[in-house]
Amino acid sequence: MIAEIISIGNELLGGETVNTNASFIAQKLSEVGVEVRWITTIGDDENEIFQSLEQAEKRADVIISTGGLGPTHDDITKNVFVRYFDAKLVFNAEILNKLRERFRQRNLPMSRCNEQQAYVPDKAKIVENEIGTAPGLLFEKGKKLFFVLPGVPVEMEQIVTDSIVPMLKEKQTTVILKRVIHTIGIPESTLFARLGDVEELEKTCKIAFLPQMGRVDIRLTATGADISQCEKKIIAVERVIEEKAGQFIWGYDDETLEKIVVDKLQQKNLRLAVVESGTEGIIISDLLKNSIADQNNIQGFVFSDLLQARDFFGMQFSRDEKKILNDATDVKQFSAKIAQNTGADLTLFVNFSRNENREAHIFLFDGKKLVKKKELYPIEVSVALQRLVTSVIGVLYQYLNK
Amino acid sequence: MIAEIISIGNELLGGETVNTNASFIAQKLSEVGVEVRWITTIGDDENEIFQSLEQAEKRADVIISTGGLGPTHDDITKNVFVRYFDAKLVFNAEILNKLRERFRQRNLPMSRCNEQQAYVPDKAKIVENEIGTAPGLLFEKGKKLFFVLPGVPVEMEQIVTDSIVPMLKEKQTTVILKRVIHTIGIPESTLFARLGDVEELEKTCKIAFLPQMGRVDIRLTATGADISQCEKKIIAVERVIEEKAGQFIWGYDDETLEKIVVDKLQQKNLRLAVVESGTEGIIISDLLKNSIADQNNIQGFVFSDLLQARDFFGMQFSRDEKKILNDATDVKQFSAKIAQNTGADLTLFVNFSRNENREAHIFLFDGKKLVKKKELYPIEVSVALQRLVTSVIGVLYQYLNK
Repeated sequence: MIAEIISIGNELLGGETVNTNASFIAQKLSEVGVEVRWITTIGDDENEIFQSLEQAEKRADVIISTGGLGPTHDDITKNVFVRYFDAKLVFNAEILNKLRERFRQRNLPMSRCNEQQAYVPDKAKIVENEIGTAPGLLFEKGKKLFFVLPGVPVEMEQIVTDSIVPMLKEKQTTVILKRVIHTIGIPESTLFARLGDVEELEKTCKIAFLPQMGRVDIRLTATGADISQCEKKIIAVERVIEEKAGQFIWGYDDETLEKIVVDKLQQKNLRLAVVESGTEGIIISDLLKNSIADQNNIQGFVFSDLLQARDFFGMQFSRDEKKILNDATDVKQFSAKIAQNTGADLTLFVNFSRNENREAHIFLFDGKKLVKKKELYPIEVSVALQRLVTSVIGVLYQYLNK
Repeated sequence: MIAEIISIGNELLGGETVNTNASFIAQKLSEVGVEVRWITTIGDDENEIFQSLEQAEKRADVIISTGGLGPTHDDITKNVFVRYFDAKLVFNAEILNKLRERFRQRNLPMSRCNEQQAYVPDKAKIVENEIGTAPGLLFEKGKKLFFVLPGVPVEMEQIVTDSIVPMLKEKQTTVILKRVIHTIGIPESTLFARLGDVEELEKTCKIAFLPQMGRVDIRLTATGADISQCEKKIIAVERVIEEKAGQFIWGYDDETLEKIVVDKLQQKNLRLAVVESGTEGIIISDLLKNSIADQNNIQGFVFSDLLQARDFFGMQFSRDEKKILNDATDVKQFSAKIAQNTGADLTLFVNFSRNENREAHIFLFDGKKLVKKKELYPIEVSVALQRLVTSVIGVLYQYLNK
């Protein structure tokens, strides 16, 4: 099945809102073998919505729209679908009761415009929205399915996961399997050249190279009648890639370098203290992001600058920041003090200066050896911090992978 | 001028990559009054790209494509543009030299496939890419402009900011001005009802309601011949909104509640210590995110659970987590200890349990008064944490706003 996502909302066209809804739907659909071929983003405009539906009906089997189902005047999606399918809005007492119940539970007043949400098109089935006030809708025309969903992410996600995915899975006959191979330490073009005849490999499955911040992902996509057929294809290509570039591979699929670092710390039974200054706390929060279990071997300390960190840990440096950062003895002493106060085996100390040079210092100390790295990011702070995180995680990975 | 963004890349349709590029471009264009009316996302597919160009040429004045300019086999965008404009690829020695120089600087080997990037269509102007290897391109057809940009965000952003925006600004005759009014503590439907005759207000400027996680933004959009004309319209509607819902407004435009909290702390000369457990460090990193200056009155401490936090601050609780969290005396004692160790005036202690209930406890203590809030988030951990952050920032805001 081929799908089109129609994302509706002026806030998407103005750039205020990033279209994470489309990515979520695309991912869920692709997991059950439905191929999203178009994502069409338009405003809350009657003609645009109508024309998009016409275009989508011509080319897709499944059409999923999000947005424009809210209670205010700029939410017009439902009415356009009513016109498109020549339907009528009918009052649904059950929905109204649910709405009333929900507002009561939250102790909020229910206003007039919420009541409109209890009117649904007579030609649509209702797709339960367990979280919000606007029900999802399903129109069927021949074999084509049109889903109409609210734009609020948690509501849309619940409807897609609980209702749409199971429905599509049942109808789907071909299967798509994807595998992502993560590499580090090799540029995209070198990696590509190293793999040899990529076109030949592509006869088995599609191969895409996705470079991101100093790392390159390779995505393999196989299509087949069932999972095991797809798996065979993926494994065949994967073997070739592992043979030719194995030393650069650090993980697969949903694995993150952060998760691998955290796992390795736990395997090696190492306690890590992260002390960061000037970084907005981005190192510790990135490292712990999506940790599956509580990581009770990791602690984080976030300071605005080195001097605040120094004071907290009761160090007696009297010299200026720059001198401390460039003096390995001072840094070792500081790291040892952190280890002592926190009970850590490994201390990671990262300092970021918001001066012109955007100088970053990374120090990893295990009680004996000091790994240090100094980097300059003469770019916007938010981008600089992203690069710094990538670099820091790389340092940790290399240390733990030895 | 009306614009269309064409986002090219299989990774966008597979949901692996969120289309932040389109949002960035949309925002930059809207700042100079260019209205983005469509964002069309398609895969690395010759026919799809070609058809999108045909459709875009019919309806838009400015077309900006991103993606598919890399050095590997699935990067086909340049060739499709060559076919679309009936152009030829010609070798450009200057680009090759720049490429070589860039690889030399980074100490990386340059492979064969990078050399292809020195071939550019004879009918296109080159739009300088200061960061990456693929130059941007500009095709002109009548009055229509077609920009072809790489998909790597930092490269695309640099080209848009430094080349495209100045070019479009010069050609633009009408101006669009936007204002976002941020509210908290009132549901979307109630806010809408409170404003009265929104249709009447919309004669002056467009009004959109954007609900997000317990807060609602109101976006005003005015169009006019110049900025001052737009400003007058915006101010007129803004006054009405402030009159009718002023007490719920916490900020405007790019302001974030986090920034307001941080500013208020500084104005009141209050030192804040944030101690969080089980939260992946999300509270401190959210609070400090995009801080303009170093915030040396804020410190953050990130632990996996309450017991790790207790040990670090040397508290002597012997009872279990649950009992401590539900005992105001214990919490006050703990908060006082944190204040003592960190020199803080205000301590924010947040604990998140990853048990079934996803119980979150928020404690704010100023040495005298303890503000406490307990919340349950029976949802996915990442969503729960997002909601928790929103709630915590709300607690800080309310305390500081008194």
